Amino acid sequence: MRGYPLKIKRVIENLQKLPGIGVKTAERLAMSLLRRSKKDSIELAESIKDMVMNVKYCSKCRNFSESDVCDICSSPSREKNIICVVEQPEDFFAIERAGEYRGIYFILHGSISPIEGIGAEELGIDYLVKRVKNEGIREVIIATDPDVSGEATAIYIARLLQDTDAVVSRIALGIPAGGHIGYADEITMIKALEGRRRIILE
Amino acid sequence: MRGYPLKIKRVIENLQKLPGIGVKTAERLAMSLLRRSKKDSIELAESIKDMVMNVKYCSKCRNFSESDVCDICSSPSREKNIICVVEQPEDFFAIERAGEYRGIYFILHGSISPIEGIGAEELGIDYLVKRVKNEGIREVIIATDPDVSGEATAIYIARLLQDTDAVVSRIALGIPAGGHIGYADEITMIKALEGRRRIILE
Repeated sequence: MRGYPLKIKRVIENLQKLPGIGVKTAERLAMSLLRRSKKDSIELAESIKDMVMNVKYCSKCRNFSESDVCDICSSPSREKNIICVVEQPEDFFAIERAGEYRGIYFILHGSISPIEGIGAEELGIDYLVKRVKNEGIREVIIATDPDVSGEATAIYIARLLQDTDAVVSRIALGIPAGGHIGYADEITMIKALEGRRRIILE
Repeated sequence: MRGYPLKIKRVIENLQKLPGIGVKTAERLAMSLLRRSKKDSIELAESIKDMVMNVKYCSKCRNFSESDVCDICSSPSREKNIICVVEQPEDFFAIERAGEYRGIYFILHGSISPIEGIGAEELGIDYLVKRVKNEGIREVIIATDPDVSGEATAIYIARLLQDTDAVVSRIALGIPAGGHIGYADEITMIKALEGRRRIILE
């Protein structure tokens, strides 16, 4: 990065540490931060600091939250005996956006990965099992990603919950809405066929 | 963005104002800022603030600079009678990275665009012409982009400098190094043919 003033270089280097941001994108972003109004760039910096300093994990579901217990866990309008287990806060937000689910959540912040040293403890699975047992949870919907580690995590959790009263379910895998059957990969196709449901004519 | 705590929402909204960052990328970046060490995220925020508050325009070449006159304009080792005119600081950095050019620069921060209301004044072209006249500039290399507005800007500047003692030149257009002749578009191909140079065997 020959030629950049030091203060610009520092921003470019810091931006490059973010996922998916290479040197070209970092340069472009730094230039844009300089080019637009000072106010907007300072507002971005301040908002990042404020978020990082004040957002913590909800003590019940491990989701990002501004308070000790998040809005969902403390909401009287959510069903407290259905837990949906997801890998990441983004997954939680995707489900919330759909607007149908009325239960509560549990966020693993990852999936089981022996190579990366991520096990049940890092993911809070022991705490999840304890909650299911102690809080009379009726159903646990496992919505981890349908990939190798997500599937392994789903099966691992299902085994641990075998002896509890909770029904353990897995979200459906299949062709996405608006997708094309012809473009589906083999595994998705197999799962879509396996998960077929009878058409009931009224 | 249903479901996000306010402080996260604020960061996502601020990130989305940057060029090329849509809602999905903004969400992913915000999550990553939360997930990694607090120190790194605060360092990013601080570096943005520091840059925005302290980087200004060089009074001679209009490039971003920490001091009133930038390192290149104040360097005794640069040839002060050759000016390379570029649209953006990124273009300047690209030329510096190549490491061959020993002259000075002039940064327009844009190109002539009547639709966007960007004319000679906004680009500092009057000041450039004054410098060429007053400082005995020998050559002006115009390295604006080879697109419609870059070409228009190049021709506009060349006309204004017609009556000065400076030679006005344009960077060569052609097939990029490592590129494929078969993939070149028509205009590049025409320019590459027009700009052909005799092979001199030693």
